[in-house]
Amino acid sequence: MTEKAFQDHYKDAYSVCYGCGRLNPHGYQIKSYWQGEESVCRFTPQPYHTAIAGYVYGGLIASVVDCHGTGTAAAAAFRAAGRPMGSEPDFRFVTASLQVDYLKPTPIDAPMELRAKVAEIKGRKVIVAVTVSSKGQVCARGQVVAVQIPESLKH
Amino acid sequence: MTEKAFQDHYKDAYSVCYGCGRLNPHGYQIKSYWQGEESVCRFTPQPYHTAIAGYVYGGLIASVVDCHGTGTAAAAAFRAAGRPMGSEPDFRFVTASLQVDYLKPTPIDAPMELRAKVAEIKGRKVIVAVTVSSKGQVCARGQVVAVQIPESLKH
Repeated sequence: MTEKAFQDHYKDAYSVCYGCGRLNPHGYQIKSYWQGEESVCRFTPQPYHTAIAGYVYGGLIASVVDCHGTGTAAAAAFRAAGRPMGSEPDFRFVTASLQVDYLKPTPIDAPMELRAKVAEIKGRKVIVAVTVSSKGQVCARGQVVAVQIPESLKH
Repeated sequence: MTEKAFQDHYKDAYSVCYGCGRLNPHGYQIKSYWQGEESVCRFTPQPYHTAIAGYVYGGLIASVVDCHGTGTAAAAAFRAAGRPMGSEPDFRFVTASLQVDYLKPTPIDAPMELRAKVAEIKGRKVIVAVTVSSKGQVCARGQVVAVQIPESLKH
């Protein structure tokens, strides 16, 4: 794995996200890393992140898929540009579309492992495919369509 | 609007969801109601539910879409059966698939209004279409494919 998480390269102004911002003390503060051509994020749900008893609620899964997806999109854009993450000009992505298929209930008493692959890079858009596993089984699959943040929202 | 929220009809065993369980003190405890053929849920984000500063993070939007969708599916199943919500046998749905299109940033300083319509009821499956508005503008659209909870997960 790379040493520093994708999210730890984000500028301070983009680090307040509830899902992935290192400066949001209330949030999940997920961390994503390259592992070869895949990116990996491990996240341990809290006992109260339940759907029905014993299983992780789908909104948390969607949240982690989303932020791992946009983080992977940013990291992939830097890779494609041949520059280290955090160098200028910055690449920062937002989510245009999020799709999650829940294949089986995700146990709440184990870490989730998310693995993502870049399915497509085209102009300002990156499509990322994500699998969510727990206890060695794939429990959900997701797709994130990430687009570079519009000029109007830039900080 | 109906007097009692969909979620307040859920059995105790199904009321621990982080998104919609009235018995989960950590969670969002969303409430959904019929308004004619549509169901409505209003939810006010907390200041720390940020994506980029000033806007709601997509994972919260996905979470509320998800739980409003499954709640609407349950309410619709009771309606289709001609029985009041909470009567036996119970209908309880889980999410098979969740899709959210983020059309524009959702302001964090205002309540979100979710409106849902049943697009299809077929056997144990209900497809629900959801719009998310804030300050009078549609900011996101979602679709929830909800299925009746499998026997193996029943409480």
